[in-house]
Amino acid sequence: MSRDKILLTPGPLTTTLRTKLAMLNDWGSWDADFKEVTAKLRAALLKIIKDNGEYAVVPMQGSGTFSVEAAIGSVLPQDGHLLVLDNGAYCKRMALVSEKMGRKTTMISFPENEKVDVETVRAQLENDPSITHVGLIHCETGTGILNPLKEISDLCKAKNVGLIVDAMSSFGAYPTEAGELQFDALIAASGKCLEGVPGMGFVFLRKAIIEDLKDNSPSVALDLYDQYTYMERTGQWRFTPPTHVVVALYEAILQYFEEGGQEARLARYQANSDVLLAGMAELGIKPFLKEEDLTAIIITFLAPASDKYDFTTLYDVVKEEGFMLYPGKLTEVETFRVGSIGAISALEMRQAVNAVRFALEKMNIQ
Amino acid sequence: MSRDKILLTPGPLTTTLRTKLAMLNDWGSWDADFKEVTAKLRAALLKIIKDNGEYAVVPMQGSGTFSVEAAIGSVLPQDGHLLVLDNGAYCKRMALVSEKMGRKTTMISFPENEKVDVETVRAQLENDPSITHVGLIHCETGTGILNPLKEISDLCKAKNVGLIVDAMSSFGAYPTEAGELQFDALIAASGKCLEGVPGMGFVFLRKAIIEDLKDNSPSVALDLYDQYTYMERTGQWRFTPPTHVVVALYEAILQYFEEGGQEARLARYQANSDVLLAGMAELGIKPFLKEEDLTAIIITFLAPASDKYDFTTLYDVVKEEGFMLYPGKLTEVETFRVGSIGAISALEMRQAVNAVRFALEKMNIQ
Repeated sequence: MSRDKILLTPGPLTTTLRTKLAMLNDWGSWDADFKEVTAKLRAALLKIIKDNGEYAVVPMQGSGTFSVEAAIGSVLPQDGHLLVLDNGAYCKRMALVSEKMGRKTTMISFPENEKVDVETVRAQLENDPSITHVGLIHCETGTGILNPLKEISDLCKAKNVGLIVDAMSSFGAYPTEAGELQFDALIAASGKCLEGVPGMGFVFLRKAIIEDLKDNSPSVALDLYDQYTYMERTGQWRFTPPTHVVVALYEAILQYFEEGGQEARLARYQANSDVLLAGMAELGIKPFLKEEDLTAIIITFLAPASDKYDFTTLYDVVKEEGFMLYPGKLTEVETFRVGSIGAISALEMRQAVNAVRFALEKMNIQ
Repeated sequence: MSRDKILLTPGPLTTTLRTKLAMLNDWGSWDADFKEVTAKLRAALLKIIKDNGEYAVVPMQGSGTFSVEAAIGSVLPQDGHLLVLDNGAYCKRMALVSEKMGRKTTMISFPENEKVDVETVRAQLENDPSITHVGLIHCETGTGILNPLKEISDLCKAKNVGLIVDAMSSFGAYPTEAGELQFDALIAASGKCLEGVPGMGFVFLRKAIIEDLKDNSPSVALDLYDQYTYMERTGQWRFTPPTHVVVALYEAILQYFEEGGQEARLARYQANSDVLLAGMAELGIKPFLKEEDLTAIIITFLAPASDKYDFTTLYDVVKEEGFMLYPGKLTEVETFRVGSIGAISALEMRQAVNAVRFALEKMNIQ
């Protein structure tokens, strides 16, 4: 009677029962057993980026945005200058975080329906040598667009500026391999493509810069340097960790490797996404982005061009059928979003498309 | 074979199976169903302080320290001056948080084995009219001492200075009633005496001051004003909430009211604590604090005066018997701590005392 709705969203998402069952134990956060979970979790995360010893990973309490703020506050020195590459809502949030803590911040904006343009960024870096760091959102879930991480990484390396990557919604599904990239910080969270439950993030830090981070952070709670050095020394988190969330994430990552890791996860999400796109096309519903810019994570759809359309009705009917859509985040065009991630497969996507069809019929939209 | 150890600690602690079972569902964080949980949780928290309309409560992601930092950053204006009343490790942490974010901070220190002295605080406030806020730890779990909240509250009200209370480890067990107190902010967390799982905190704010908090915070993630106004407007959390932790906390609070609320919870903890103290006295192990200063939350015990004593052995043997102790946090005296809180009763305390007896025998300590 109370089967969970399927969450077609960029996180929190549908997790496996096995992941949730891992939360049925209580752990002492300072105890050796829990330290072992933390150590194994950190090792597993480093394995995902195929680290060859160059990177460390620092888990952080809170939502993904807490980890973004922790990364900016800890990596940028107080006289640093962050260039945020903006093509959506999460980019603007990153710039706001940096400005609020008093770091010099410049935002360079691109159209929301286009990727960040590497040559424009190159010109900006050449124009303004005061820029010390670049901030990039890998997959901007405001629209679902995937930005050119490898190219921006190469550019930053060549120009000798630091790179802070918010890989929140892409991590685990799209490649973020240490051997292919150079970044100062790369941030993601538990409740996204790794299919854990929400409640913690983690930041990969390039080891070569870690000692420079001492005393950068204006925050105690969000100080990555302190969190890192304390964890290295004691095996513990500095402040109470969300123990149940941590063990659930570790259990989720075990399933990630069992599934076949990044390639397998992306293949499943791509299959989900293909079913979704094809089904929506049959219903006459088109994506906001050009086809070549679509990702397998979340797709922004243009609302049907009918005055009978109403998002609340669409949402409510589809929810009644067992699926939760996600509202749009664009101000100028009416859209809604559908995620393809989580512990779901093509079956659920077919069912979801049928639910959308049913909702459109109810609204008398052809 | 894998029954959980009983956590005799100030949190994370042992929770009921019912509380943990609440985490076996996935929730959409923007959905009406989850908004309803958030609303009911906030109402339940206000009921605990017997609010009569004067206070609001703002949940916050992260550990309790994140909420402390959120409260200081949001409540103190940038030209504010915080007087921290220090008799232990958590007091020092509060002062550090305030200093790091650049707020003027004065710490007035009392002996660790004594309560904060109200007359000394009064004199300090009279001496230094630049002080705008007082920071108090209700129960300092470094030692387990309970500070005079009511008296400090009366003093701050009389002197017209703000009061920020860290009630992390006391909240739910000791009274923090709105009608008895006046505070600007009172902070607690999910995984303490409410017996939820760790992963979020919450801050009670006096409504009369909320509009003054706009733009105080140097942090985006930890801005209580933004979190409050967004939540009031939309019913949602600004950033991804730890959905499973939130529903577990609500389930835990339902059990709290079913048990009989604050009085009943304190009575159970007091009974636990009495059994513990009597049992330890039989073993010749004495508390660090004077008897009249002991609380029913956590007791700091002096290590046995024997060169055969070794905390690691005590810890390991007692753990093998099914109970987790907590290390001491004092630098000058060798101690260990035992919590009386969590979903446990006098039975577990008797068993724990027996485990300590067994460990002492193993170490050949009389």
